[in-house]
Amino acid sequence: MGRSRRRSRRSSQTASPQSPLHVAPPGLPGGTYKPLTDAQIVRIHEASLDVLEQVGIQVPASECRDIFVAGGATVDEARDRVFIPRQMVADALAAAQNEVTLYGRDDARWDMTLGGQRVYMGTGGSAVKVLDLDGRMRESNLADVAQIGHLCDALNNIHFYLRPVVARDIEIDVLDVNTYYAAITNTTKHVTGNAYTIDTLHDVIEMCELIAGGAEALRARPFISFITCWTVSPLRYAMETVEVLTEIVRQGLPVFISSAPQSGATSPAALAGSLVQINAEELSGLVYCNLIRPGCSVILGYVPSVADLRTGNFVGGAPEFALMNAAVSQLGQFYNLPVYNSSGLSDSKVPDAQAGYEKGITGLAAALAGANYIHHSAGFLESLLTVAYEQYVIDDDINGAIMRCVRGIEVTDETLSVDVIKEACFGDGHYLASQQALKMMTTEYQYPHTADRARRDDWEANGAQDMRERARAEVRRILKTHTPKRIDPALDAQIRAQFDIVLPPKLAGL
Amino acid sequence: MGRSRRRSRRSSQTASPQSPLHVAPPGLPGGTYKPLTDAQIVRIHEASLDVLEQVGIQVPASECRDIFVAGGATVDEARDRVFIPRQMVADALAAAQNEVTLYGRDDARWDMTLGGQRVYMGTGGSAVKVLDLDGRMRESNLADVAQIGHLCDALNNIHFYLRPVVARDIEIDVLDVNTYYAAITNTTKHVTGNAYTIDTLHDVIEMCELIAGGAEALRARPFISFITCWTVSPLRYAMETVEVLTEIVRQGLPVFISSAPQSGATSPAALAGSLVQINAEELSGLVYCNLIRPGCSVILGYVPSVADLRTGNFVGGAPEFALMNAAVSQLGQFYNLPVYNSSGLSDSKVPDAQAGYEKGITGLAAALAGANYIHHSAGFLESLLTVAYEQYVIDDDINGAIMRCVRGIEVTDETLSVDVIKEACFGDGHYLASQQALKMMTTEYQYPHTADRARRDDWEANGAQDMRERARAEVRRILKTHTPKRIDPALDAQIRAQFDIVLPPKLAGL
Repeated sequence: MGRSRRRSRRSSQTASPQSPLHVAPPGLPGGTYKPLTDAQIVRIHEASLDVLEQVGIQVPASECRDIFVAGGATVDEARDRVFIPRQMVADALAAAQNEVTLYGRDDARWDMTLGGQRVYMGTGGSAVKVLDLDGRMRESNLADVAQIGHLCDALNNIHFYLRPVVARDIEIDVLDVNTYYAAITNTTKHVTGNAYTIDTLHDVIEMCELIAGGAEALRARPFISFITCWTVSPLRYAMETVEVLTEIVRQGLPVFISSAPQSGATSPAALAGSLVQINAEELSGLVYCNLIRPGCSVILGYVPSVADLRTGNFVGGAPEFALMNAAVSQLGQFYNLPVYNSSGLSDSKVPDAQAGYEKGITGLAAALAGANYIHHSAGFLESLLTVAYEQYVIDDDINGAIMRCVRGIEVTDETLSVDVIKEACFGDGHYLASQQALKMMTTEYQYPHTADRARRDDWEANGAQDMRERARAEVRRILKTHTPKRIDPALDAQIRAQFDIVLPPKLAGL
Repeated sequence: MGRSRRRSRRSSQTASPQSPLHVAPPGLPGGTYKPLTDAQIVRIHEASLDVLEQVGIQVPASECRDIFVAGGATVDEARDRVFIPRQMVADALAAAQNEVTLYGRDDARWDMTLGGQRVYMGTGGSAVKVLDLDGRMRESNLADVAQIGHLCDALNNIHFYLRPVVARDIEIDVLDVNTYYAAITNTTKHVTGNAYTIDTLHDVIEMCELIAGGAEALRARPFISFITCWTVSPLRYAMETVEVLTEIVRQGLPVFISSAPQSGATSPAALAGSLVQINAEELSGLVYCNLIRPGCSVILGYVPSVADLRTGNFVGGAPEFALMNAAVSQLGQFYNLPVYNSSGLSDSKVPDAQAGYEKGITGLAAALAGANYIHHSAGFLESLLTVAYEQYVIDDDINGAIMRCVRGIEVTDETLSVDVIKEACFGDGHYLASQQALKMMTTEYQYPHTADRARRDDWEANGAQDMRERARAEVRRILKTHTPKRIDPALDAQIRAQFDIVLPPKLAGL
């Protein structure tokens, strides 16, 4: 069959990824799923405070430790452990920002106010391998940061762009600035990344100040943010990363403090115990950041994960992973603080049925629980190691379905439809031509762009493709036809003059 | 690579489908997900009562209508409509059984007490096509009822066996008795089916009385039950089926009253309105059954589904489907009555990523909401039209993950693990060798049998198969190695002497 017939059939059957966002927009409130009771949350909270007081965190002598001590912590110098009394946690909770707003670059559609039960889903990092559209595995590179950004810019159910891969082709001293550059120039969605050193952090910030139109403008509407993996579970600080974290807080930019223990390996095998430990780690980070700068833009970064106890392997698609990542959303709501967590991982190596169900289950659990910034929820395979281009398209449909579930069911006099029912029963005996159906066709229902709802004969006539094959075609179509809103060429020239940008201009749309 | 190496690797990495049921057993309570608020549930309930009073149901002159009228209903004879006052509904709710227990055949592991928030997941019906293990489509037949039963008997996260396909090779007058026979002889799980006429219903009941050891024994521990699709939405009774329903209730056997309107086509496009209509239909059936026999074993059969308003096609994998099937669980809990509903459908034609995510999302939503008897949650593809053998194996893993989510997180002094955390932090710095990890390895974690958690090199060494390919191998292994508990050969001979059994003896294990 000819290409044109396929094209025309598809367009009549599928929604465009660029379709309006009104059916299930970013930021809808979750909270209808509560894996923990209120009493259980309090017990986890109290046990975390016990851990901070009695077990403490391991922090060698450093500015960080001095800051803790000045704030009221005690130290066991022989063990390098810092013990945090309850009152310090209470003070931090009182000082902390209850909402943190992250911005899109010149595009308010992608502004996100993290906090409460508002749900946003997006990409995660940082994979080291890519499953290419031709089915081959290779190392990830800087071009992937650009091209995946380009792709995600067109996918409406991916709400932010956390740099998904490590650009393994780039020298470490210019890695951070190039990674942010490749992301920012390819999408107007909020960009999150990291910085390996204070120097490279400064490069990123200076570049983004240029783009924002000044230091104040960047702080007023930060279109970038930073992740710091500042702990090594259990309860030990990674001091080089702590220095970067400290500088981000001092710079007044938003930061996610990410802790990712694996239950059974680096946190207790009991799920409740894993939650206690990660909560203690997060509260210690909250205390630290608010000692540096009270009311700073810090987002709690709970990423509880699972070790398969038969093998020790990291597991991203497990139901226990789903449960814990839903539960931490409740902890954030208990503290009235914004939360970053994880869903959408799969341990499958290919975009198959396993990838589908693991993403569906972990994503729905986290989103219904009202997690604010669900990263990893697009593109991933092989736990945290691989991304696949077509998986972003598939996951955009998955996230769309999940966000429609988050929206829930509106109950009003109009939607209860007693008169509509009467009219149908006393009339035609069906609703297909009802005014309500015509009106609600584009407001009540979320239509997937790549999932198949055709009748079998149409599906066969279109080539009998599975979702992976259709998604591959969609990736090619988007990369060919979608143009992200680029930064101004004059500004780009200024950036390239000031920083060692190695991304080919073509991949920034120049 | 040789077969033996594959086999040994797999067995070291995967759980057996026959593994113990203690991690996530059938009947765990859901209820942590509540898509509707209490106030919204009351509004839907009230609107349903308005519909029953003002719109009524279409019932031609019949014994059924006489029963309604004798119970207090009024009739519009010109329109053939029966109007049911609120008091009749209240009386039925007061008379109705709050729990209905269904039994396994000689196997108490598969007994199910439907009601409350207890969750059971199983197969559904009734497909007309089979996607065979060789990838070919064909009509479904009686051998499929037997072989899929054989397969499901070995899959622990499929809790009951609702005959999944129509045996299209069997004459209508012996279809029901042969369908039940093929199912019952291949699994000890509870068997649900239907009967097309009162005569064929009697055949099924008489055969099952033989198997149970008498009429009383069957009523005391019914290992079979019946579905009746007694309505044609919106709000019209299908009179031939009503006669069968009436007889089942009189016979004192458990019956599901199933109503499956499609929102936008045979119920309002507004999801809330669809819930109002289906709730009115279900309440009318509850009234009717309890007028025939107060306190009969009737299970409300809410199966709200969706029409894609762009095409009119039935859609089984939509998020709106997930939302409504979760919401009806809350209606059942509001009435304190057992509920039958639906999840695990997919509109995909093959076991791909779409099938995975649609099943994961719809299944998790219904189960977390506490639905009692979730049918369709194994085997289905192409909405309601096709089943695939390998999909049962895949869905068993999906259901296992979902049931683990239903179980939730236990919070006790022991699981909070403060001492375990202290020991790790003051000791080795990890938990891999902890007593808790060793103990919880087999109690805290649900291990999939077919989902892949291997490292990439192991996965590649095992043939780099996707989940569909692995599931196909697992189907072949189960059908070859698993022997269901058969019925006694002497009893079988008696059945074959008394009824026109056309299933080849080999497919009943003889």
